[in-house]
Amino acid sequence: MSKKYNIVSIIRKKRDGESLSSSEIDYLIKGYTSGELPDYQMSAFTMAAYLNGLNKEESAQLTRSMLHSGIIVDLSMIPGKKVDKHSTGGVGDKLSLILAPIVASAGVPVPMISGRGLGHTGGTLDKLESIPGFQVDVDLERYKEIIDKHRLVLVGQTKEIAPADKKLYALRDVTATVESIPLIAGSIMSKKLAEGIDALVLDVKYGSGAFMKKQEDAMELGKTLVDIGLEFGKETVAYITNMNQPLGYSVGNWLEVEECIHALHGEGPEDILELSHLLSGTMIYLGGRAESVNEGISISKMQVQNGEAFQKWLDIVDEQGGDISVIRDPDSYVKAKFEFELKSPEDGYINEIDSFQIGMASLELGAGRKKKEDAVDPVAGIRLGKKLGDKVKKGETILTGYTNKPSVMETAVEILTKAVVITETKPKEEDLVSHVIDKDGIRAFEL
Amino acid sequence: MSKKYNIVSIIRKKRDGESLSSSEIDYLIKGYTSGELPDYQMSAFTMAAYLNGLNKEESAQLTRSMLHSGIIVDLSMIPGKKVDKHSTGGVGDKLSLILAPIVASAGVPVPMISGRGLGHTGGTLDKLESIPGFQVDVDLERYKEIIDKHRLVLVGQTKEIAPADKKLYALRDVTATVESIPLIAGSIMSKKLAEGIDALVLDVKYGSGAFMKKQEDAMELGKTLVDIGLEFGKETVAYITNMNQPLGYSVGNWLEVEECIHALHGEGPEDILELSHLLSGTMIYLGGRAESVNEGISISKMQVQNGEAFQKWLDIVDEQGGDISVIRDPDSYVKAKFEFELKSPEDGYINEIDSFQIGMASLELGAGRKKKEDAVDPVAGIRLGKKLGDKVKKGETILTGYTNKPSVMETAVEILTKAVVITETKPKEEDLVSHVIDKDGIRAFEL
Repeated sequence: MSKKYNIVSIIRKKRDGESLSSSEIDYLIKGYTSGELPDYQMSAFTMAAYLNGLNKEESAQLTRSMLHSGIIVDLSMIPGKKVDKHSTGGVGDKLSLILAPIVASAGVPVPMISGRGLGHTGGTLDKLESIPGFQVDVDLERYKEIIDKHRLVLVGQTKEIAPADKKLYALRDVTATVESIPLIAGSIMSKKLAEGIDALVLDVKYGSGAFMKKQEDAMELGKTLVDIGLEFGKETVAYITNMNQPLGYSVGNWLEVEECIHALHGEGPEDILELSHLLSGTMIYLGGRAESVNEGISISKMQVQNGEAFQKWLDIVDEQGGDISVIRDPDSYVKAKFEFELKSPEDGYINEIDSFQIGMASLELGAGRKKKEDAVDPVAGIRLGKKLGDKVKKGETILTGYTNKPSVMETAVEILTKAVVITETKPKEEDLVSHVIDKDGIRAFEL
Repeated sequence: MSKKYNIVSIIRKKRDGESLSSSEIDYLIKGYTSGELPDYQMSAFTMAAYLNGLNKEESAQLTRSMLHSGIIVDLSMIPGKKVDKHSTGGVGDKLSLILAPIVASAGVPVPMISGRGLGHTGGTLDKLESIPGFQVDVDLERYKEIIDKHRLVLVGQTKEIAPADKKLYALRDVTATVESIPLIAGSIMSKKLAEGIDALVLDVKYGSGAFMKKQEDAMELGKTLVDIGLEFGKETVAYITNMNQPLGYSVGNWLEVEECIHALHGEGPEDILELSHLLSGTMIYLGGRAESVNEGISISKMQVQNGEAFQKWLDIVDEQGGDISVIRDPDSYVKAKFEFELKSPEDGYINEIDSFQIGMASLELGAGRKKKEDAVDPVAGIRLGKKLGDKVKKGETILTGYTNKPSVMETAVEILTKAVVITETKPKEEDLVSHVIDKDGIRAFEL
């Protein structure tokens, strides 16, 4: 730190709604990472930033400082443009496991660093670990080795990647400063930019199953993320997508992997295939393997049809230590000891599925963590029998729950009963993708 | 703690501008005092409280919880209503040393616990300690013994008084959350209510030399303080007073004590006598020794005239270990080694005296602390030759500076030169006291 700032005056400036200079933000993040700046000053700052916001330049600098708190992986030895995807998270969002092998099989390298389940949403790492033997913790050398060999790697955040973000995220979690758009954006982008990517596709979700309940908040977050990506010279495209019901039919770690296997055979649920192909098509386009997003989508579909995407999936599971026998034969996977069905109390249409509650019930059944140290049960979760707008008859199964802990079933049923609303009339269909944001700004989505 | 709250949800509520219940605030303060609640969560809370405020009930509960973090001194063995005064602090504000002996000599017990200098303002304890031998650190037994004997005691905060406030104040100081009206009010009132008082007079200052620069902020603070006092069943009166120039002519510890000695002989500067008699008259009235504030003021003046106030001052200095020879003969006090004069560059009127800068220059000369551990120099400071509205001739002395550190004189002169503005026309006179706040609300001040 060349210049010595007064940390109290920096906090005071943000408290009073003023903008901070780049060197002030850098001083904060460097001081916090080194331990010179104590937690209690950082938490006062994050609360002030939560309430008074950060402007575009401040958000970019926060990202830059967190990014440079660790190393930026050099993937220049891998030919081609490296492209990753990030989703802000939702219930049943398993798309990474589908699109990563599709895109890699189409020739675009995908260096994907993912996270674990958080609150009501699952995490890619937990899903991968439901495959017996799959290793998500690798060091940087191995990370480079895997992507070099397969144009794909699916791992967790190493200690060298954005340590400032790791420390700051833990602090935000216990000081009620998580849900801040600039802080979320800085956290996401510092990690993604450290991976060694050239371009990024973002799936920014809103609705009952997402962190952002309101569409306009998702749009603001998407715009912030794209601005930061562009500021760092990376092609960045964000889609604003609907999370008012779980993606697909399965919620829970292995249940979702199983659904991905079907999708990679082209048999997946419609919403999953639609969104996967859009995201992977965009990645293929940004990776320079298609002239347009539409052509990218066609390539994506072809990679599923010709079996190359599934083969890539087998290869990466095998490379990272996973048991490919369960990928080839998902039915051979161990089953949950207990299951229960939720039946419809009347004839009608599925009008509402509160995805937050679906996620919470799934967590209750064992698929998620209440505390950081909790282990997740790979087979616990929920399988929907119906989706929004589906016709349902009295007594018909709306969903099935799976668990190894019979004691939690009553609570789960209670939550689930309130989560599903049935009406006499069919509800209006909602668009899965509402907007796209890129270097030309934000606009309504159409292919 | 009977009920277990989730601290993150309490922070979140305040972050989102919601009101907290009394038990939630109590949980926070108890947890913080016991060390169960870490600094980093408390600082996130105080920043949220700073930015979103606390309502009347929350402020009262904050005070109550901090008050009950320590003991409330029982002074029931002392006959009569115990009355104290608190000033929010200003440059040259030495009134406690004048009004306390006046009021005690009039028969009203004054249990006064004071603080040290803070930033640009001096502190009563530092002033008292400029009297050789004066002891401000006494234990509770001795505190009761002194007030029992003299109806007066002038000491510092003991460790038994509001420990939560002590801990919280230290945290606020390093997290830019000092200047919050409800937090300031809770801090002041928890300490004052612990002293064992029946009534309280508040001098709430605004202007360049005060912590509150704006009159409306001082009025809001005054209203909050009075509301809390009344809530606790104490008669409470606040005056909103002008601090756009130092009180009296002297700034600096012994220099101010010297000015107080003159005031106790009835020879003090006009503004000091006016405000001292108003405050002590109000204390005498609240203590039941006068039928009205006006009668209280008459009694106050009489106590100076008949020498009883000065005798009380000699008695208390002697009792608390101070050397009364310098009180009897202030000229015998050791002098500063260096002094300098600021001369007027032109003919005109004193239009502005930036009291904050006067305080800062005085601190620079040695009268205050830059760090908590710094020692103060009793003879360092500034003596004004002129006050606002005074006519001044080119070359005439505007002020004199005193120090034992010649190296700081240049900096002090630089600050002081910019602090005084001279104009051709006489500025409009400002009222010393603008408003009074009591159980009947707030109104313009008139005697």
